[in-house]
Order: sequence, then C-alpha cells, then structure tokens
Amino acid sequence: MLTDIDHVGIAVDDLDAAIEHYRRTIGVEPAHREVVMSLGVEEVLFLVGTSYIQLVGALGPETPVGRFLAKRGPGLHHVGYRVDDVAATLDRLKAEGVPLIDEAPRPGPRGTTIAFVHPKGMYGVLIELVQEPS
Amino acid sequence: MLTDIDHVGIAVDDLDAAIEHYRRTIGVEPAHREVVMSLGVEEVLFLVGTSYIQLVGALGPETPVGRFLAKRGPGLHHVGYRVDDVAATLDRLKAEGVPLIDEAPRPGPRGTTIAFVHPKGMYGVLIELVQEPS
Repeated sequence: MLTDIDHVGIAVDDLDAAIEHYRRTIGVEPAHREVVMSLGVEEVLFLVGTSYIQLVGALGPETPVGRFLAKRGPGLHHVGYRVDDVAATLDRLKAEGVPLIDEAPRPGPRGTTIAFVHPKGMYGVLIELVQEPS
Repeated sequence: MLTDIDHVGIAVDDLDAAIEHYRRTIGVEPAHREVVMSLGVEEVLFLVGTSYIQLVGALGPETPVGRFLAKRGPGLHHVGYRVDDVAATLDRLKAEGVPLIDEAPRPGPRGTTIAFVHPKGMYGVLIELVQEPS
C-alpha cells in the first residue's frame, strides 16, 4: 500500500531564503519548483535518496499553509506517502473510519495524483497520499 | 551529505494503540521496537520503501517528547536524515552557524550514530542526523 516516503512538507515564511539556507547548510539542491494554485502554495523539492524535502510557502494569509504559519510559525507541516493507487488507499481508509480531507483523488503537482487525510484520524499528522504519474 | 530520509518521527500518547491503528489503517507492520533511555522514548519503526515511519512514545512527562505531547498533543515531532558521516555533517553545520543540540555524535537506536540539530536553525524543524552501523 505505502511504497515509500514521498516527502516531508515544511512550511516556511520566506521560500527563497529557505532554499538558500537549505542549500548552504545541508547541501541539497532544488530539483523542482511549482506554484500549486489549488493548494494555495508554492513548493520547492529537494531530492534526497528516493524522497523529497519539500519547502512550502503560502500564496496568501488565508490559505491553509498561511493559517498554519500564522498560528505556529515555520515547521513540519505534513508527510507525503507514496502509494500505488490513491483511490484504493482512500477506500481502505474510509472503510476503517479514518476522516479524510479529500474524498476522491485530485491532481497534484508534477503530474501526480494526490489526496489529503485528516490529521485527527492519524495522531495529529496531516498525511498526503501521492501517486506518481503512470 | 544527506543520502535519504531515514524516518519521520511522530509523537504519540499511546504507543500500542498507535501501532495497531497504523497497522490497520495504512497497512504497515512494525519492524523494530526499542526503549531508548538516553532519549527518554520508546520507539517503533515501520519500514516503508527505504525509510521508516517512527512512532515515538515518551518514557515520562519530564522527557522532551513528554513535554512536546503535553504542549501540542500527538503529531509530527522530527525528521531523521540519513548521512554518511554525522561528525562531518555537524562540522559543516557548525561552520554555517546552525545551532546544534548535540555538539558531537552519540549512540542512537539500532546501532546507529546520531545527532540532533536545533529547530531554530532549520525553520522550526527538529532534525536528527542518522548514520547507519558500518
């Protein structure tokens, strides 16, 4: 069902400064940058092994990440798990009574298919299911 | 320098219940369980691809994870990055002025060598560097 950690999502208040900081301190280079209007974010991915570090900036204060930053400041925001089949994973979670944010898969960045699972059903962790382009 | 995401660390208030929940909902099986007195935790690892989901329970309320749980409740606690050489990575971070929790590598669970980097130097993210047993 889960095949890998796709990414750790880190909310940051200044995306360009954070990219430069990550590059300088832990020596990672950005592999992808994308504005994702449907999520209200601009994200940058650093490939590390088979997973990504994802820095996420908010497109405005009234977006989910904007509200997270206002409440908690920068920090760990969510975990993305890579799955073979987002729809099948959602079905299993639904059957187990786990509350979902997305009842059905939707298009994500990089041509992926994604869905978010509500943190209240997973010990406070916001989970993103990520299916790579086929 | 970073070779992979080693794990995402998730603080939980009831370790056994969380293990059962993870097994039932997202279909992962625990691969390792260990009490780590030096960190004040009991941790369980689920292997997912080349990385682990790590559930972390506190050994008491006055431990770092116990205080995290009292303040924030269960949720994402830290990220572990796999590195070839913890000492060399600490040297680089020190040279860049990143505040460290551990100034030198120390023994971690599973025979690993670890060190923690202070979240205030990494956009609010507590980072654990993990070097696998050679």
